[in-house]
Amino acid sequence: MKESWSAFDTFEPHFRPLVVIELAKNTKEETKEWLTQRIVDKKKNGGAQLLVKPLVKEDGGKIDGNQNLYLVGASHLRLLLGAETVGLVKECNDNSMRTFTYSSRNTFKDFAEDNHDFLTMAECQYIIKHELENLRAKDERMIPGYPQAKLYPGKSILRRLLTSGILLQIFPLHDTEELKKLRYTWYGQVKISYQPLDEIRCYFGETIALYFGFLEYFTFALVPMALIGIPYYVFAWEDYDKYVMFASFNLLWSTVILEVWKRCCAIMTYRWGTLLMKRQFEEPRPGFHGVLGINAVTGKEEPVYSSIKRQIRIYLVSLPFVCLCLYFSLYVMMIYFELETWALNFHEENESSYSNLMLFVPSIIYAIVIEMMNRVYRYAAEFLTSWENHRLESSHQNHLILKVLVFNFLNCFASLFYIAFVLFDMKLLRQSLATLLITSQILNQFVEALLPYWLQKRHNTKVKKRVYSVKVDTDLSLFEQVNLEKEMGTYLGTFDDYLELFLQFGYVSLFSCVYPLAAVFAVLNNITEMYSDALKMCRVFKRPFSQPTANIGVWQLAFETMSVISVVTNCALIGLSPQVNALFPDSKTDLILIVVLAEHILLALKFVMAFVIPDKPRDIQIKLARLEFESLEALKQQQMKLAAESLKEETHGEKKMN
Amino acid sequence: MKESWSAFDTFEPHFRPLVVIELAKNTKEETKEWLTQRIVDKKKNGGAQLLVKPLVKEDGGKIDGNQNLYLVGASHLRLLLGAETVGLVKECNDNSMRTFTYSSRNTFKDFAEDNHDFLTMAECQYIIKHELENLRAKDERMIPGYPQAKLYPGKSILRRLLTSGILLQIFPLHDTEELKKLRYTWYGQVKISYQPLDEIRCYFGETIALYFGFLEYFTFALVPMALIGIPYYVFAWEDYDKYVMFASFNLLWSTVILEVWKRCCAIMTYRWGTLLMKRQFEEPRPGFHGVLGINAVTGKEEPVYSSIKRQIRIYLVSLPFVCLCLYFSLYVMMIYFELETWALNFHEENESSYSNLMLFVPSIIYAIVIEMMNRVYRYAAEFLTSWENHRLESSHQNHLILKVLVFNFLNCFASLFYIAFVLFDMKLLRQSLATLLITSQILNQFVEALLPYWLQKRHNTKVKKRVYSVKVDTDLSLFEQVNLEKEMGTYLGTFDDYLELFLQFGYVSLFSCVYPLAAVFAVLNNITEMYSDALKMCRVFKRPFSQPTANIGVWQLAFETMSVISVVTNCALIGLSPQVNALFPDSKTDLILIVVLAEHILLALKFVMAFVIPDKPRDIQIKLARLEFESLEALKQQQMKLAAESLKEETHGEKKMN
Repeated sequence: MKESWSAFDTFEPHFRPLVVIELAKNTKEETKEWLTQRIVDKKKNGGAQLLVKPLVKEDGGKIDGNQNLYLVGASHLRLLLGAETVGLVKECNDNSMRTFTYSSRNTFKDFAEDNHDFLTMAECQYIIKHELENLRAKDERMIPGYPQAKLYPGKSILRRLLTSGILLQIFPLHDTEELKKLRYTWYGQVKISYQPLDEIRCYFGETIALYFGFLEYFTFALVPMALIGIPYYVFAWEDYDKYVMFASFNLLWSTVILEVWKRCCAIMTYRWGTLLMKRQFEEPRPGFHGVLGINAVTGKEEPVYSSIKRQIRIYLVSLPFVCLCLYFSLYVMMIYFELETWALNFHEENESSYSNLMLFVPSIIYAIVIEMMNRVYRYAAEFLTSWENHRLESSHQNHLILKVLVFNFLNCFASLFYIAFVLFDMKLLRQSLATLLITSQILNQFVEALLPYWLQKRHNTKVKKRVYSVKVDTDLSLFEQVNLEKEMGTYLGTFDDYLELFLQFGYVSLFSCVYPLAAVFAVLNNITEMYSDALKMCRVFKRPFSQPTANIGVWQLAFETMSVISVVTNCALIGLSPQVNALFPDSKTDLILIVVLAEHILLALKFVMAFVIPDKPRDIQIKLARLEFESLEALKQQQMKLAAESLKEETHGEKKMN
Repeated sequence: MKESWSAFDTFEPHFRPLVVIELAKNTKEETKEWLTQRIVDKKKNGGAQLLVKPLVKEDGGKIDGNQNLYLVGASHLRLLLGAETVGLVKECNDNSMRTFTYSSRNTFKDFAEDNHDFLTMAECQYIIKHELENLRAKDERMIPGYPQAKLYPGKSILRRLLTSGILLQIFPLHDTEELKKLRYTWYGQVKISYQPLDEIRCYFGETIALYFGFLEYFTFALVPMALIGIPYYVFAWEDYDKYVMFASFNLLWSTVILEVWKRCCAIMTYRWGTLLMKRQFEEPRPGFHGVLGINAVTGKEEPVYSSIKRQIRIYLVSLPFVCLCLYFSLYVMMIYFELETWALNFHEENESSYSNLMLFVPSIIYAIVIEMMNRVYRYAAEFLTSWENHRLESSHQNHLILKVLVFNFLNCFASLFYIAFVLFDMKLLRQSLATLLITSQILNQFVEALLPYWLQKRHNTKVKKRVYSVKVDTDLSLFEQVNLEKEMGTYLGTFDDYLELFLQFGYVSLFSCVYPLAAVFAVLNNITEMYSDALKMCRVFKRPFSQPTANIGVWQLAFETMSVISVVTNCALIGLSPQVNALFPDSKTDLILIVVLAEHILLALKFVMAFVIPDKPRDIQIKLARLEFESLEALKQQQMKLAAESLKEETHGEKKMN
């Protein structure tokens, strides 16, 4: 085996390890040989035509235990052809964005046969992942060495290896040099600047860069709200007209920022090329199982699962479970309110600084309980959604997000709704809002980034000592790097990060007129959040695979829904405020009618604004239209050539007949 | 000239006239020669490669005046190649729908080299229209014979001829045999049946078939409402719960029918192939003018008009004008109410059957005035929209529809809103609603179909007598047919027909709980409407060019908006009804809060329903996905072949290097 690999090495003099494959310790030699053979095999034989190398110590020392770590790379040419396969979009010499094809490679900006930086490392790793995942069984009926791990023609080999536990993980390697540079520009300098989104995108891919872009955009968008909110706190403004002004501004502002974000997002993803990328036909997600059947779309053999069974699982199990959880959450809330009254009574009975402190205890306990419940529910939701057995990753994600969103929404805001619209206690509302907001922000930052960072650091030192006890403080060798990185946690996607922002948006907008300071806290939190998330990405987790994406997907809808709900809540709050009530001493009816009318006008205005503001800036629209026009023209040219030829033939034939 | 045409005739032994071109009487010979030459010229020389023939009398008699009518046809092969150019979608042998290409013609259902019915006549005429419109100037700087009619390379010749008044009109010929058959199946039989939508589509094209499909669907959808409405009228039900039930049913029902229509529409247009047709790049509309510049999308020379100038015209002229008209309309409404009070006083003073009749006079006058105002405003809106100088036909249409919709909506419903929410007079509301609905329905049917039909019939006899005084009651010759049809009115599109339905939908849904009988009248009207519209299409107007379309476009949005508004009005009406008010004797506030809550829940339910009901049935979704998958696969195959070749070369090169 060794010889053949080293022989293969000579094909690419500079083997650059891009992706690491970790197999189980006790994987049979037979399986390893088969897998590596399939990876290096020619495309025409059904291989991936990549380069693969077992991980060895630099000094040639022996590895304790079996060889189970492999490095995967590819020749430059192979990567370029792979870029064409996945449909990467790159900038051309004339500054337009076009789908990369190998034959037209010379028209692309910065392309040169010897320029190995034409594709970013993240793109190379994405290509390799795509090629590995598309390694499909030919005539194998099982994984060699594991007769129980069945295969069928067309089944992704890597997915089968993963589900049967032979493949432990596959992850892209960090580029220590690049990472150091990125860290420096991102959060290494003590100066205020925009985040290096393009660099983040090059290193981590579009999904993550888009999250950080959204975080930054959202923070900037909150600044006007925060600035307007400060004098309300400082001067304790409680007038009716100032309230209404603030709320109206907030509501229209939130529509504007969500619409403008779509435009910013289009500008960014156009520059990155993902706005133009064609969606590939989605494969079943790895966890999907079913009876072998014929896919109605592709006509290929693959597991099929009845849609009716899934509907039954969704509506008869998941939906009741979610409702039960929501009910439980409301029950916990009622307990919280009893505790609150108890604390208040306690404070009134024994007036002291101790009892004053006690006043905050129920809120803090409740915030912590909510945080815990959220986490437990999250596991349940993930389990249920997996059990619903969605065929597509996107549909799985949507169902998961919906479940989690509803529960989190209720958990975070039910108590506030109760205080506002049942107890009518604006003072308590303000206090609870502040406690919830600040507690959850501190807790999140701690649990999400600082704690893992500390654990990781401790662990790293331990691993380093064990693996290579001699040189601890010099640069890491590749062998050490791989061994360190494989132990790092896996970044599970941007879900939690968006969820956090979503809830924050709720705190800021739902009751904005009661607690104008919320935006200030949100801005402050988001600034530290940017740093702690950056730290998390660079230091705590394994490098994630890049994931091309053109927008923030279902989150856009979630944020827009929240902004619609906030119109209703804010109008209701203004209607309830004693200042406004004092203006209508005789007739409650008039007051309510005016509030309802205002609410309807605001809602209509929101919809009209969302409709009128175009989702893409004009120049991007023109660029997209030009691209579409060109491809239609090309098609027409081709067809016209064909038509002219046919007509020529026909005319010729008819002349003969005459 | 004659020789060359007759020589050309031999190319297609059976010349079938499809489209008629009418030039101005005094068109110069030079121009005629040039135009016909361009039409018959080869594609490669920039011609349309069609067949053209001057219209002659069958008996070889002399035509009075200059020759100015030409018949255009095409060889069967030319039409097939044209079908490929316009991107027609046809059914294949395996029952899937695919874009027609000439090279794969044998895979299509019913295709045979000698089957001239493979393309419907409407499709052939659409192809010829497309080819004629795409006849573009090459190096001509003007129309030969008319130095003031400037041209520039790429400008559509036909459009220039039209705007300079040389080309009077271009229209497709009726097929008398087919039309007779269609008339028989459509409205010739005295039996109740579905409309022959597929036949209508074959003869008139998709846009018109879709209108009749929508009319039929909408009528069926109204039947449940009508059935439920009848007992309310018969038994004079006035209970609170029955009111609420009817209104709730109505509101949810209207959401359901609009969502289900999308699905029906997708099924129909999939069968017709237009659901899959790719949108061609839109040319500027004929009336568009501007300075010659470079189009940012195509890079071609064409008139360019600054978007800012257009915005100024829209916001500084059109918008104020529309507002003024709306104000005027409200003013007229106030006069109507004064008249109404005057008539009431008059009736009270001299109680008689004459004065009783007087009670209805104001309503009838108002209905007629509204109808007249609508028509005048329509002309103004068309003028203003033309003056706004939109580049695209679609954008022109949208702005026109928006202007007309807003005005018509206010005109028709302002008085009803005033009666309902200012006067609180439910009895008057019911009476006005009935008068408005019935008057406008009768007026419409009369003005729209019966009057033109009668005029047309009188005119036809006159023309027939003049043209061919000998044989009046035998079948028409082609010469007579063309001369008859060219004098017929031009069908201006489905706009007015949809508008009528839209307003009817408003009458039915906005105040449904006050006047449940509205749906009954709507159903009755729609049944006669179907017949009168069919008569109009077959007998009154010139045959219109077929227009492929995949849905009813902006009207879907208009109907959905109306159904949202009707939730608000119905909830308000229920809240105002004395029966409901009697349930809350002490507290108006509780009543209003409950009504508002119910309204919000209904609105939320509507949005959830619209979101949950998929726009396309599952099998259509699968078919579309399969088509997309296949084209992606084809692309991938092509790329993989390319990649394999390149890799082979590279490996070869590297082996040499070793």
